[in-house]
Amino acid sequence: MVTVTYQELYRTFLDVLKRRGFSDERAEVCARLFTETTLDGVFSHGVNRFPRFIRTIDAGLVDVHAEPELVGRFGVLERWDGRRGPGNLNARAAMNRAIEIAREHTIGCVALANTNHWMRGGTYGYQAAEAGLAAICWTNTMPNLPPWGGREPRLGNNPLVVAVPGPEGPVVLDMALSQFSYGALESHRLRGEQLPVAGGYTEDGELTTDPAAIEQSGRPIPAGFWKGSGLSLLLDLLAALLSGGKATHEIPDDPERESGVSQVFVAFDLAKLYPPEEMARIVEDVLRFTREGAPATKGGRVYYPGERTKERRERNSKEGIPVDEAIWESIRRL
Amino acid sequence: MVTVTYQELYRTFLDVLKRRGFSDERAEVCARLFTETTLDGVFSHGVNRFPRFIRTIDAGLVDVHAEPELVGRFGVLERWDGRRGPGNLNARAAMNRAIEIAREHTIGCVALANTNHWMRGGTYGYQAAEAGLAAICWTNTMPNLPPWGGREPRLGNNPLVVAVPGPEGPVVLDMALSQFSYGALESHRLRGEQLPVAGGYTEDGELTTDPAAIEQSGRPIPAGFWKGSGLSLLLDLLAALLSGGKATHEIPDDPERESGVSQVFVAFDLAKLYPPEEMARIVEDVLRFTREGAPATKGGRVYYPGERTKERRERNSKEGIPVDEAIWESIRRL
Repeated sequence: MVTVTYQELYRTFLDVLKRRGFSDERAEVCARLFTETTLDGVFSHGVNRFPRFIRTIDAGLVDVHAEPELVGRFGVLERWDGRRGPGNLNARAAMNRAIEIAREHTIGCVALANTNHWMRGGTYGYQAAEAGLAAICWTNTMPNLPPWGGREPRLGNNPLVVAVPGPEGPVVLDMALSQFSYGALESHRLRGEQLPVAGGYTEDGELTTDPAAIEQSGRPIPAGFWKGSGLSLLLDLLAALLSGGKATHEIPDDPERESGVSQVFVAFDLAKLYPPEEMARIVEDVLRFTREGAPATKGGRVYYPGERTKERRERNSKEGIPVDEAIWESIRRL
Repeated sequence: MVTVTYQELYRTFLDVLKRRGFSDERAEVCARLFTETTLDGVFSHGVNRFPRFIRTIDAGLVDVHAEPELVGRFGVLERWDGRRGPGNLNARAAMNRAIEIAREHTIGCVALANTNHWMRGGTYGYQAAEAGLAAICWTNTMPNLPPWGGREPRLGNNPLVVAVPGPEGPVVLDMALSQFSYGALESHRLRGEQLPVAGGYTEDGELTTDPAAIEQSGRPIPAGFWKGSGLSLLLDLLAALLSGGKATHEIPDDPERESGVSQVFVAFDLAKLYPPEEMARIVEDVLRFTREGAPATKGGRVYYPGERTKERRERNSKEGIPVDEAIWESIRRL
């Protein structure tokens, strides 16, 4: 591990992006999103993901100049074409537009077709909540998750994000619909650890906490078994129907070629309903009640979604960001 | 078990409801909703639930005459006060209104405060999908689920419904955010069966498939562990914030006194986006791809959400509805 500062990380990303032809302004936003994700401790979609993001540019899957284009306006729903632009810039623009519509009509929705991986989904939840709005957004993905009852990956893990502003910062849920991502399986394996709960099947169809066995079988479980399986299917249907874009079965079945995904961004302008201090009090009361119950294990406690992100952000801001040395070196050579 | 017809069940419910003072028209709708739920094989929120529904009326928690009242209009979001009316009639009226708003603005949302248990949530998904719309709706509940990391019930199991129209009937996901409901635990215990996957903790904090042990500890697990726990919290926050009604911590912590819950109904008018046959083709392609993969177990298969409901509905329509004899007798005496 090497420890780098926010500024070092940001500058390094920025230089690489500019060398890939991003305009100054777009390079700055894109670099900031990758840096903030890393600062928040979400390495899998921050610094560790950056080399693959650059590979998708070099492979021509991501067009660094493409900006989303309005395709149609249907009341408070707008359809946009992502034109295969950078997924994080596209998603950010889409949530911005959903927020604008919501400021006018309380709810705004942008359905985005033909875009690319949005990296950390939570980013767009924070974006809305920091602006004082609640939001729900989700993306489909390539087939990477067997449905309940099946052994082949026929669903995406279709991450879902739900966010509301909170008294000490946003409450943001950012969850893929597999119990563990492939990234989480890999990092447990590399640390020589078992998963805390069963995460998939062995080749023989037994539930297991062994990450390597699940990587080998290609059979992670949906979060909540049949429940996550059903939710993943419905989110894919809604993303494809609302955006007019691709469903999971139409997305290339290869992590290096995944492109053209569909996303939905819904924003709710809570400022139409409350003064901010009243909203903060309502959220605070819910969080307090949830957290003040007895812990499951001695010395344990209940965290709300986003709480540990906030802690990691504060720690990394103070102490610097721990980055894998080999990945850091590879990025400096990009 | 006794086998009853749709008409017998409907007439029996209708008579009881009329004796409780429901107007003819409202008694007919309420009886039909309970009958359809039972016909679909969802006994826990149909015939088996009916006696408790009547008890909540007799206890004064449910006002049979109360109709929801518009509290405020905020663009495409409307807030309604359920006035402690019958939960299924209120929810049906709310989804109807969300559909009306969506017909005009593509998306419509009704946030309903001060209502009662909606019985089967899927009902309102079918309602939207049968009218050609997609829908997302959810409700909060009394605290009945320990959050991840906690041992006391500080969350609701907050059922979530997502529905789209499909080529052979609606695709409807209807899921509580606990892995198993208390009803499911009880029915497994009565049949002397273990749960198919771990559903909660023993008193000693070990994961278990023994339904009786979970009933005793009061520690069912959220679907997807930390994931369902986070989603439950966010859905409660959104329901309370959007409706201006109660959050889970404000709802009486007793199944016989649970009242005044908050619900959100969002409808998407897909007819603005597609001719029906094109929409059916898109959904059909997704369902086909999901189902045609190899099964997890020999002779098994993948079902989409709503598919088994459809099968049960067809079978029960033909063969009659199997009803527990003691429950049937108790309803006839209500």
